[in-house]
Amino acid sequence: MKEADMLYMKKALELAMLGWGWTSPNPLVGAVVVKGGEIVGSGYHKICGGPHAEVNAINDAGEKARGACIYVNLEPCCHYGKTPPCTDLIIKSGIKRVVVGMKDPNPRVAGNGIKKLVDAGIEVEAGVLEAQSIALNEIFIKHIREKSPFVILKTAVTMDGKTACENGDSKWITCEQSRQYVHRLRGRVSCIVTGVGTVRADDPLMNVRHEKGMKDPVRVVLDSSCSIPLHSNVLVDSPESTIVAVTDSADSEKIKAVENTGAEVMVLPKGDKGVDIKSLVSALSDRGFDSILVEAGVNVNASFLNEGLVDKVYMFMAPKILTGRDSMGSFGGDSPHKMADAARIYDMKAESIGDDILITGYTKEGMQCLQV
Amino acid sequence: MKEADMLYMKKALELAMLGWGWTSPNPLVGAVVVKGGEIVGSGYHKICGGPHAEVNAINDAGEKARGACIYVNLEPCCHYGKTPPCTDLIIKSGIKRVVVGMKDPNPRVAGNGIKKLVDAGIEVEAGVLEAQSIALNEIFIKHIREKSPFVILKTAVTMDGKTACENGDSKWITCEQSRQYVHRLRGRVSCIVTGVGTVRADDPLMNVRHEKGMKDPVRVVLDSSCSIPLHSNVLVDSPESTIVAVTDSADSEKIKAVENTGAEVMVLPKGDKGVDIKSLVSALSDRGFDSILVEAGVNVNASFLNEGLVDKVYMFMAPKILTGRDSMGSFGGDSPHKMADAARIYDMKAESIGDDILITGYTKEGMQCLQV
Repeated sequence: MKEADMLYMKKALELAMLGWGWTSPNPLVGAVVVKGGEIVGSGYHKICGGPHAEVNAINDAGEKARGACIYVNLEPCCHYGKTPPCTDLIIKSGIKRVVVGMKDPNPRVAGNGIKKLVDAGIEVEAGVLEAQSIALNEIFIKHIREKSPFVILKTAVTMDGKTACENGDSKWITCEQSRQYVHRLRGRVSCIVTGVGTVRADDPLMNVRHEKGMKDPVRVVLDSSCSIPLHSNVLVDSPESTIVAVTDSADSEKIKAVENTGAEVMVLPKGDKGVDIKSLVSALSDRGFDSILVEAGVNVNASFLNEGLVDKVYMFMAPKILTGRDSMGSFGGDSPHKMADAARIYDMKAESIGDDILITGYTKEGMQCLQV
Repeated sequence: MKEADMLYMKKALELAMLGWGWTSPNPLVGAVVVKGGEIVGSGYHKICGGPHAEVNAINDAGEKARGACIYVNLEPCCHYGKTPPCTDLIIKSGIKRVVVGMKDPNPRVAGNGIKKLVDAGIEVEAGVLEAQSIALNEIFIKHIREKSPFVILKTAVTMDGKTACENGDSKWITCEQSRQYVHRLRGRVSCIVTGVGTVRADDPLMNVRHEKGMKDPVRVVLDSSCSIPLHSNVLVDSPESTIVAVTDSADSEKIKAVENTGAEVMVLPKGDKGVDIKSLVSALSDRGFDSILVEAGVNVNASFLNEGLVDKVYMFMAPKILTGRDSMGSFGGDSPHKMADAARIYDMKAESIGDDILITGYTKEGMQCLQV
């Protein structure tokens, strides 16, 4: 792989990131047009429904696009969606080489974009910084392939894996930079799921405060008996973006009271422990949500994991040791009887975030090298 | 700092590492002699009592040392110890430049080695790769400055901080490479401390099996009532390198039976929970032990931490999630009532070891930048 190709693809990936939080359910895409070793045009997909990255970059390059090379982290589309096919524009612009990060997993593209370019006599190179391209759009990839939201479970723990003292005190575990990172995650996802226990204990706002200019996700509270206090922040602050998920055992008066705040009440089937979370994920999927962030207590965390609903775990670890046999961990429920039966995590990685360490991993093998 | 200086110092540090496990209580030291951009001699301190690194490197260089530069990660000594002063040999050899990683914290040297070289007209540069030089010899530095062993606490946990299922099953948490790393740690320390609970549950050998040619550390079992089963591996396999630490409430017949295996019984004062571990550390210090590795259960771990006896924590984290409200964590005892009162960890770092992540940190600020 040529070093220059990787350099310009890196630039395209950086541009793509600028759309973070605004392109959903579309992918994050950036593009640069290069001619004679110089970037003559650049652009990115800014918002769902708006022009694609290639369009912005080619328009930015203008006449200089003729004979140039375009770098784009996702295969150009070849179908009419909200906008006309990018392949047509690339061919028309006179671009003679296209470097692609990854193929588009969208079955309407899936290699056909590349084929159309090659058929038009354009040189195409695919798979440059492919792993990074896949990681950047893992939410998009899962959503378009499985028609199901990408589920992220986030915890914040001490070095010894604790989330709270035995009396529940948990403020604050992680550093400012980690909290800011979490707010960026919130700004990317369609919704946040938590339990009513967390609402009672912490009364969280669960919005995006530490990052400016990002959309707040929908807040979903698991509350089988609809017992949420009406003065809770999620019912007082922007209740129109709050869903309370209950079962049919919830009292109709209570449901009415919650609905009167402006929040939505969603009645779902009963599971082993309150609301059936598979049904919840399915209902959220039906709304077109491409991603769910679980920020909850030990029981909800364990249920999501044990039901096989989690795709990725983000664990923010703070440089402290709480100790305590009775202090709280991050996953409740019953453990397997054998260590060998613990849930496997794949591609576990660590990075520094301020004084904390962020550890990420996937619950399924090959999430990082999705065959697309 | 010149790039070439860093390169040769890195080489000296690599050579120093070859003495790992054999130089104690001496430091790990490596040296390279460079002339005309070429390494003309190299050596390291191989074993306590043997020649210093500088001697081996200068002898290796022979006549080529004249006019050369020597790189050594620790300030050359200027006193008669088990061997004559290295400064004298350096001056005699005709070396004209000395590059030093860190000053020697030994009060008998502490800058005097450098002074002696400068007074002899030799150019000296100190502090090249100082942080790495300090980290390599952190055991030596603490031991020589505080006359007390450097205490390492090691745990092996799942991603959710668990060490065992609720029934105690814990085999295996970490990968082969992590276990090998632990055996290298064992080969470096004077002794390993564990509790009789761990001996009963796991019947560990606590020796160095995964690394060839390394010394086994002394094994110390905390067992206030001297209840250790006589068929335990630590009493059957090399009992002469096992110490059972009891209190005066232990039955004299039991003590005699343990002594009959060939192991030593050490009677120590009572603490809040069995053997007073401060007295234990003090007794081990009196024997000249420079380092202690705590590989124990939740209660011993918590006691060492809460008594302020731990210097460094090594946590091997495996890519799995166990879950379970009743599964075991790594530190027992009572947690503080506020998260804000959790023990602080400094300079927390993560690195990959096979599929696992090793997280290290210090319990005191500035362990990584000791003023020497």
